[in-house]
Amino acid sequence: MTYQQDGNLTTRIQQIANCFFNFNKDIIDSVKDIAPAVKPQMAFYEMYGWAGVLAYQKTVEYAKSKEMLVIGDAKRGDIGNTAQAYAKGHLGKVDIGNGEEAPIFDVDFLTVSPYLGDDTLQPFIDECIKNNKGIFVLAKTSNFGSGYIQDKVDQEGKTIYETVAEYVAQQAERLKIKTGYSPIGAVVGATYPEQALKLRNIMPNNIILVPGYGAQGATAKDVTNSFDKDGLGAIVNSSRGIIYAHKKRYPNGDCTREQYKEEVRKATEDMKKDITQALEKEDKGYNKLDRDR
Amino acid sequence: MTYQQDGNLTTRIQQIANCFFNFNKDIIDSVKDIAPAVKPQMAFYEMYGWAGVLAYQKTVEYAKSKEMLVIGDAKRGDIGNTAQAYAKGHLGKVDIGNGEEAPIFDVDFLTVSPYLGDDTLQPFIDECIKNNKGIFVLAKTSNFGSGYIQDKVDQEGKTIYETVAEYVAQQAERLKIKTGYSPIGAVVGATYPEQALKLRNIMPNNIILVPGYGAQGATAKDVTNSFDKDGLGAIVNSSRGIIYAHKKRYPNGDCTREQYKEEVRKATEDMKKDITQALEKEDKGYNKLDRDR
Repeated sequence: MTYQQDGNLTTRIQQIANCFFNFNKDIIDSVKDIAPAVKPQMAFYEMYGWAGVLAYQKTVEYAKSKEMLVIGDAKRGDIGNTAQAYAKGHLGKVDIGNGEEAPIFDVDFLTVSPYLGDDTLQPFIDECIKNNKGIFVLAKTSNFGSGYIQDKVDQEGKTIYETVAEYVAQQAERLKIKTGYSPIGAVVGATYPEQALKLRNIMPNNIILVPGYGAQGATAKDVTNSFDKDGLGAIVNSSRGIIYAHKKRYPNGDCTREQYKEEVRKATEDMKKDITQALEKEDKGYNKLDRDR
Repeated sequence: MTYQQDGNLTTRIQQIANCFFNFNKDIIDSVKDIAPAVKPQMAFYEMYGWAGVLAYQKTVEYAKSKEMLVIGDAKRGDIGNTAQAYAKGHLGKVDIGNGEEAPIFDVDFLTVSPYLGDDTLQPFIDECIKNNKGIFVLAKTSNFGSGYIQDKVDQEGKTIYETVAEYVAQQAERLKIKTGYSPIGAVVGATYPEQALKLRNIMPNNIILVPGYGAQGATAKDVTNSFDKDGLGAIVNSSRGIIYAHKKRYPNGDCTREQYKEEVRKATEDMKKDITQALEKEDKGYNKLDRDR
């Protein structure tokens, strides 16, 4: 029996997906006034099929209704008209017949993979411009094996992650962005602070999405390298550190919903304080580079 | 108004997604006895949100009920437990509570991206072993810009696509596969026949998924380089060449459903004949390499 053929199974999966959405509402309600953005990870919804994707859509909608920015973490990448399909679905509008179009996921930012080539990033960039959205291109990811491809050094002595960062930086010129940040940013794992410093230098006007803080082991000091000379330009993400925050005080999860939400909010405040203090104490990445010049 | 809030919009999108499924049933019915596999491209379903993903799931189910193999073309890739979520959702089973698990997409093969590192491919390989499934790792893709990262030459003189192919080949050893093909294959675009020859040499016992034939410009002669010494081991994909086959005889699409299905079947037969003849006339990739040794 499969998903569709077994009504009982379909109902169970819909119930699970609905729990995800309710859970997310509590997280969003707990942090909406102290965090600028949420980054739902598409994999954990997609793994439950269409019902999971519905919960993802409802989560995005809910977060936006609370005036949070939404970063869709999907790491999509494909070629030609297929890349365009992902770009339109996540960032733009799709054809619904009779010459009409409708937004589908409508996230503010999407993470994308550069492996298939620079030509495959263009459809995403086009949709960013058209719909006032942004993307974060994977440059140096936070996992221990990220060097397998990303650290390869080409014959000019340049790593793949530097090549990607240069591409990201160049888009600001191509898009004639004179002031402020480019809508084309990059993902740089906090677990690689030295590489982050190099990458901040290559991308002075790009927003860097920084995963790896907390559960993955990176500290507040590690993330400072991704900030720019104004102490801005980086979005530090914590997922497990926030959504499992209650496990510190309630290791067996025996807390009320309100107690859970309190721990989530507290962990978010602690994270902000931790990073703010580190930014005051440490030189920002850009300043360190300035000093070395 | 968004997808969820506007019942009329939701209904329209569901209708579109249902058209996709009905269209796919016609394609599958037209080719099921003459083609071994179908490769639905997830982007074109996902772009319509949950309703599109439901159509994808129904398509996979229908193709399998007609004893076709299904290659889910999703090019997924992420780190750690996120990669595992994709792997379980597409190739394995997910937790549905009470200690029970259920398959969700349950495709036979999934395309995956190696950009995030070798550690991120392991969860997919684990699910392949557990569930008797396979993956195709993107090595050299068919688009014109694929060289941007994939053709970079490292300091040992090795391209990224060769590094990926070596990884793919090594998995057969790790999995102790002595005879037959490894469940871990690679994607090698037919639009790069010279690179395909090198890659077939690196991966003698791996199945190569070959996009790019037909609409993307590669010929039957181009694809022969991806076949092994037995004239096997390659799956050549044609998408637009098959599903828009009727446009040759009926440029304005003014044909009946039966005429459409006839053209789809005819195009599939022509493709098979074209490739079979080329394989008879040309040396297979592996033989060419044998001769050069």
